[in-house]
Amino acid sequence: MNDKQWVAQHAARLVKDGMVVGLGTGSTADYFIAELARRRIKESLRVTCVASSVVSMLKAQRLGLQLIAIEHLTQLDLFVDGADEVTAEHTLLKGQGADLVKEKLLARACDEFMVLVDQSKLVEHIGARYLIPVEVMPFAWQLVKQSLKEYGGHGALRQNSNGSGLAVTSYGSLVLDMAFDPKLDCVEIDAILNATPGVVEHGIFHGLATRVFVADKGGVWEMETP
Amino acid sequence: MNDKQWVAQHAARLVKDGMVVGLGTGSTADYFIAELARRRIKESLRVTCVASSVVSMLKAQRLGLQLIAIEHLTQLDLFVDGADEVTAEHTLLKGQGADLVKEKLLARACDEFMVLVDQSKLVEHIGARYLIPVEVMPFAWQLVKQSLKEYGGHGALRQNSNGSGLAVTSYGSLVLDMAFDPKLDCVEIDAILNATPGVVEHGIFHGLATRVFVADKGGVWEMETP
Repeated sequence: MNDKQWVAQHAARLVKDGMVVGLGTGSTADYFIAELARRRIKESLRVTCVASSVVSMLKAQRLGLQLIAIEHLTQLDLFVDGADEVTAEHTLLKGQGADLVKEKLLARACDEFMVLVDQSKLVEHIGARYLIPVEVMPFAWQLVKQSLKEYGGHGALRQNSNGSGLAVTSYGSLVLDMAFDPKLDCVEIDAILNATPGVVEHGIFHGLATRVFVADKGGVWEMETP
Repeated sequence: MNDKQWVAQHAARLVKDGMVVGLGTGSTADYFIAELARRRIKESLRVTCVASSVVSMLKAQRLGLQLIAIEHLTQLDLFVDGADEVTAEHTLLKGQGADLVKEKLLARACDEFMVLVDQSKLVEHIGARYLIPVEVMPFAWQLVKQSLKEYGGHGALRQNSNGSGLAVTSYGSLVLDMAFDPKLDCVEIDAILNATPGVVEHGIFHGLATRVFVADKGGVWEMETP
């Protein structure tokens, strides 16, 4: 069993009968989905799931988990997802892979947002390893880029995976991968991006994660609450 | 000549040769577009325009104004638009009629944002006359509504004009018309809505208007800068 499996199994054990659970996207989230499905069969665990992406929806469906659409959701007990970066303050960077919007929506809606990472994801500050993904309306990307220059913002439109064109999100947005003035902290960048017209969503998840589990050399530890 | 024409003419006189000008949407903006077109012919005024909506684009096109697409815009001298409410601090409420997103994008991008209203639009606080329009992603409206309850938020999805279904914006969003806890001021509501996932844009324009012209009994006066 690898680190991702360990931490996913650990989180899946915390799911209680009758819960409504949001499913993240990515390799760790996939292990979590598989473990939930296993508990459903072995322990007759009753759980209703909502997916943050088409990929996780298909995965859950194939494994026989009961799904409801995000449109029908009014209450969510738990959301479990990975992250690309995590700080000691439980601020996350997400969005290297899948779409951000549904993930942030579920992260905001749930009572408990558990983040599963391996220790390579722990960083001192957001942006340490990755550029910050900024989802923009297609007609707005130039003006958004221009207006973020005021904050030292620079970056480029993300290419799609085969390099033949631009990446487009499931909501039809483009993605600017941006760096900012290093004097700005992630709380300031979060507020700037939230207030910029044309920005649909961005990769900084501040004040949303309630628990962070870290897989480390075959064990799992929980980060101290900030 | 009515009040809206007076104030539109006043603003159009401030346009200088060679400017790039953003065109708002609505009856006052229409008069402004007509006056710009008149100056183009009578005074050979050279001006490049960018429209905030299909309606204002068609109007400008019919009158022979030169247009560029918002996608191609990197610099904007002036944006001229109306508003549904204006406070003494130059905060606006917009979005009763047309889409908000392009209007806010132009308001943020321009060097000068001139707002044209008649005195019936002046209010003591935002939300005095109208509910606050909140553009939301279709799959997110229930969760957005739920999460805004924390701030006393309540409201309903806007109906389309013939009452046969929901209003849909040009970006495919739905509109929640919302009221909030009266103890919250518009700066607080602005920040809350900016930080709510699933919200595409909203009708509070704070810190964007640079000049406000008010038509009043056949004259035009300018509001004092806050």
